Amino acid sequence: MYKYLDKINCPNDVKKLNGTELNELSNEIREFLIDKVSKTGGHLASNLGVVEITLSLFRVFNLEKDKIVWDVGHQSYIHKILTGRKDKFDNLRKYGGISGFPKRCESKYDAFDTGHSSTSISAALGIARAKDILKKDGHVIAVIGDGALTGGMAFEALNDVGYSKTNLIVILNDNQMSISDNVGGLSTYLSKVRLDPNYNKLKNEINNTLNHTAMGKNIASSISKIKDSIKQLVVPSMLFEDMGLKYLGPIDGHNIDEISDMLYKAKKQDGPVIIHTITQKGKGYNFAEENPNKFHSIAPFDCCSGVLNPSNTRTYSNAFGESLIDIAKEMKEVVAVTAAMPDGTGLKKFAKEFPDRFFDVGIAEQHATTLAAGMAKEGLKPVFAVYSTFLQRAYDQVLHDVCVQNLPVVFAIDRAGIVGEDGETHQGVFDISYLSHIPNLTIIAPKMLEEVKPILTWALKQNEPIAIRYPRGGDQKDIELKPIDNIEKGKWDQLRDGQEVVVIATGKMVQHAEAAIKLVDEKYSIGLINATFIKPIDKSILDKVASYYKHVITIEDNVLSGGLGREILSYLNNTGFSGKIINMGYEDGFITHGDLATLYKLNRLDTDSIREKIVELVES
Amino acid sequence: MYKYLDKINCPNDVKKLNGTELNELSNEIREFLIDKVSKTGGHLASNLGVVEITLSLFRVFNLEKDKIVWDVGHQSYIHKILTGRKDKFDNLRKYGGISGFPKRCESKYDAFDTGHSSTSISAALGIARAKDILKKDGHVIAVIGDGALTGGMAFEALNDVGYSKTNLIVILNDNQMSISDNVGGLSTYLSKVRLDPNYNKLKNEINNTLNHTAMGKNIASSISKIKDSIKQLVVPSMLFEDMGLKYLGPIDGHNIDEISDMLYKAKKQDGPVIIHTITQKGKGYNFAEENPNKFHSIAPFDCCSGVLNPSNTRTYSNAFGESLIDIAKEMKEVVAVTAAMPDGTGLKKFAKEFPDRFFDVGIAEQHATTLAAGMAKEGLKPVFAVYSTFLQRAYDQVLHDVCVQNLPVVFAIDRAGIVGEDGETHQGVFDISYLSHIPNLTIIAPKMLEEVKPILTWALKQNEPIAIRYPRGGDQKDIELKPIDNIEKGKWDQLRDGQEVVVIATGKMVQHAEAAIKLVDEKYSIGLINATFIKPIDKSILDKVASYYKHVITIEDNVLSGGLGREILSYLNNTGFSGKIINMGYEDGFITHGDLATLYKLNRLDTDSIREKIVELVES
Repeated sequence: MYKYLDKINCPNDVKKLNGTELNELSNEIREFLIDKVSKTGGHLASNLGVVEITLSLFRVFNLEKDKIVWDVGHQSYIHKILTGRKDKFDNLRKYGGISGFPKRCESKYDAFDTGHSSTSISAALGIARAKDILKKDGHVIAVIGDGALTGGMAFEALNDVGYSKTNLIVILNDNQMSISDNVGGLSTYLSKVRLDPNYNKLKNEINNTLNHTAMGKNIASSISKIKDSIKQLVVPSMLFEDMGLKYLGPIDGHNIDEISDMLYKAKKQDGPVIIHTITQKGKGYNFAEENPNKFHSIAPFDCCSGVLNPSNTRTYSNAFGESLIDIAKEMKEVVAVTAAMPDGTGLKKFAKEFPDRFFDVGIAEQHATTLAAGMAKEGLKPVFAVYSTFLQRAYDQVLHDVCVQNLPVVFAIDRAGIVGEDGETHQGVFDISYLSHIPNLTIIAPKMLEEVKPILTWALKQNEPIAIRYPRGGDQKDIELKPIDNIEKGKWDQLRDGQEVVVIATGKMVQHAEAAIKLVDEKYSIGLINATFIKPIDKSILDKVASYYKHVITIEDNVLSGGLGREILSYLNNTGFSGKIINMGYEDGFITHGDLATLYKLNRLDTDSIREKIVELVES
Repeated sequence: MYKYLDKINCPNDVKKLNGTELNELSNEIREFLIDKVSKTGGHLASNLGVVEITLSLFRVFNLEKDKIVWDVGHQSYIHKILTGRKDKFDNLRKYGGISGFPKRCESKYDAFDTGHSSTSISAALGIARAKDILKKDGHVIAVIGDGALTGGMAFEALNDVGYSKTNLIVILNDNQMSISDNVGGLSTYLSKVRLDPNYNKLKNEINNTLNHTAMGKNIASSISKIKDSIKQLVVPSMLFEDMGLKYLGPIDGHNIDEISDMLYKAKKQDGPVIIHTITQKGKGYNFAEENPNKFHSIAPFDCCSGVLNPSNTRTYSNAFGESLIDIAKEMKEVVAVTAAMPDGTGLKKFAKEFPDRFFDVGIAEQHATTLAAGMAKEGLKPVFAVYSTFLQRAYDQVLHDVCVQNLPVVFAIDRAGIVGEDGETHQGVFDISYLSHIPNLTIIAPKMLEEVKPILTWALKQNEPIAIRYPRGGDQKDIELKPIDNIEKGKWDQLRDGQEVVVIATGKMVQHAEAAIKLVDEKYSIGLINATFIKPIDKSILDKVASYYKHVITIEDNVLSGGLGREILSYLNNTGFSGKIINMGYEDGFITHGDLATLYKLNRLDTDSIREKIVELVES
């Protein structure tokens, strides 16, 4: 039972509360968030950081006509709580439950779906321009973190915003970090603005000096020849004002009255405005304040102790990070690049061990890729560790800067395949399709954890671009597979002989296939091939397949279109194979959030569905 | 015969000339460039703008160890002339001749291959960091235009550069435009820096006042509490200095001595430096100075009159631009978006006709896409006109911001298929592969010019994302085809009945197929189907194909992997079709530069090759 929260059922209910009551409400919301997220898992620290910003937005704006675009969107929980979804938090990020990101299909108050970083200013500007052209009423607000601001498209958008005279309010949620420590010249700049107490003091001092002395007046007069010069001296806002936005701030992002005042001021401004708010990620929950990274995206935990529920899973990310350290000890030319994900990708230890060979470039996948290309061109062996879904941002750079020149960059593609609770915008089910058609690129996938190190070692010895894809989490339990003993480009591995039907699977799907075949082992003899290489395919083993087996099943944790199965189908078609070929993978469509087991089952890539398909084919 | 140019055979030959001789050389280079490019076509205006910058770089740096990365790279002709390739300019951009872009395979002095915009700072930083780690000697220089600086990845790179202490020189080639008029807040900022004569005057005035008066000294002292505050007041460099780069300039980019002095200064600096040079695109050739857009990328022309050799080709770009104007007159919610290509995409007239409904966002394909998504969400019908190769930059935004939300953005994808002389980095041969696997996206292609308008009209009436792909240039001559009379989502068009063999082609390949079939018409009866929709495919017509024809040939102007042919193959495989299926398209590999006819022939997509394949199949 919450005194205030229980009364909030629609956005305008917030307007009924005064400042003190809103502060009470913010406490209740924090309590609610910690309680719920400790049970479901989800994004916690970022939400604790924007409680007051969200309440102020709901206080000042009218969500029936004003639109808020939440950058990335994992900080939208409070928005969801205030827009009639607080009863749904027990099923947050579960299959059929509410998403962890804004979803227009969930609520008319969700203005724009987000999930990836740095899109909010573009989307908000689009909405604002549409309102102008269609003569619709209402304000448009983009809320963006300082981390997301390092993404290039945010700058592209700011450039366009600054040029236009469109009314748009950008709220810079500056928590001095994005997911991990913030990096880059922009971050240094923002710290300067934030931290230097002299700025405000000096502003007053200079104003006084200039106003009250004759000489000062002379200087002031000569200075005023250039409009805004005084402002340039005393207001730490140059970067944004240079771009053409009116800068307001910095202000305390946890003071509802202060934020509200600034929002009222911004509302009256003509043209684009940026409000610089200083917030603390994890605010109000000790454990998250002290360790915001851990509480960024978190599994269920004990809310009294802040201790994660125990998990013994050894993950592919861990295996990757540890392997890279071992290899880097031997190969001095190995360096690691991340786009603001040292934790998620398992590179944190590497960063400590080799600080001079580790580069966190901010949320900047495009730059990371071409930076790696430059490094490779000059003799280094860069590894760019990145989630499958985020490498989408660098499709052009992979193709154009790495592969046209055939440079030895290794892409360590984590979270390939479905990832579960983060849903549509985070599933890594497109990478085989967006990478396979790129010339010069070799794509390889470990079928089990123990293969990460030998494959990474092999990749770093090649003199050409290599992508290694591996899934979120760890291995299936109770699967007995032997790790590969000899890696040769384009060579696949026959794991089981068999008759009539052979299954060709890649990556973790080899584990699903093995489990499925075991279930029918006594009745049928089914072959199993591990397509270690997704590209190039193993034509010699396929020639044997064509002459020996009657039917072929392919399995991959990727959409079917543009996938491995289609390559195999094409090769077998060209060589005149006349048996049946069944491609298993994801159908054309986005895959919602939910636990992995449910999603595999729904998409018929679980052990049982594979078993059924095998039986159906054998008995056909 | 050139007095100086004839003596330049390797980079260091430039060092033998004094300032006056270098000025003479720059005149000769301009003469040479105008003469050669008037015969071959190519990029002219951008090269005329960087003659002095290039000569100064060769004068000050040692290309045996120093590396220059040319952003985009179409301004690298002088670099090529000075590095032993001047005798190859008769075959510039011809098949087998030198490329119009830097190519490491052409010369050891080409440090990094470019072609797309905004990559140079990333690549140069990678090279510089590699030099540091591998303890290699030598400076690294990135030359980037003010237009390219609007691309987000340039900002991502600047952010990283500013943060690091790596030695790196960025030369901002500020010609106040990129390909077309420059836009954006950054551009406004640069103009302010460039144009305000008060800046330098004021700088001196204030320095004098502060140094020579007591009160001034007091102020100076209180100001000095904040390091750099004085500089913030008087030096128009804040944006870059805020990011952490040392700013030098602005200087005259056509004054070799001035540039050289600045380069010597930059060479001695520790840490990253940006040199702001002001240049004129087209400098030294009246016609190009007056009309730099026309002379950006130009076909052969008469160098005395500046008049283009006559061409009567009506292009798809023209047809698109004109159609959009007609449609926009009726549909008030139609708006157009371009990423700095109003000329190339045919939108120039639209921009004049509907200035309030036209948005040039700079070289910013990511922002353009998500901006369009925001507009569509709010009720507009945005059309983003973009080259196939440049839309690669926005792969993630198409998928994530447009298609996840199923928003009605129309992508008018120009230069789809091979484009010819611009080569590897500009061929539009991947778009079917990178778009087809994206859920919710419909892809359609006109088979002829007259279909552009009905297809565009249809697309703008749909309430979902649509991509229309069409080629560079115009139609084949002497092809008799009737334009489509009824567009229905996913419906294909049977153009010719036939027996045994049917050809399924899409877009302009329908013209090639029609011509090929005509050649064998008397001997064989070949069917022809126009796959108007690349996605979704027409399953009902394919069912008829499967029951009526023995064999199928598919033809597309795209790589085979992830292409339309594979989708057709997959469908026919799943339905049990037992005939032969041959997919024609581009094999796995990058396609070099050359004229279209040669490239089609080499890649076996010309009429003759298609005819051969048909005959082979019929007689098999």
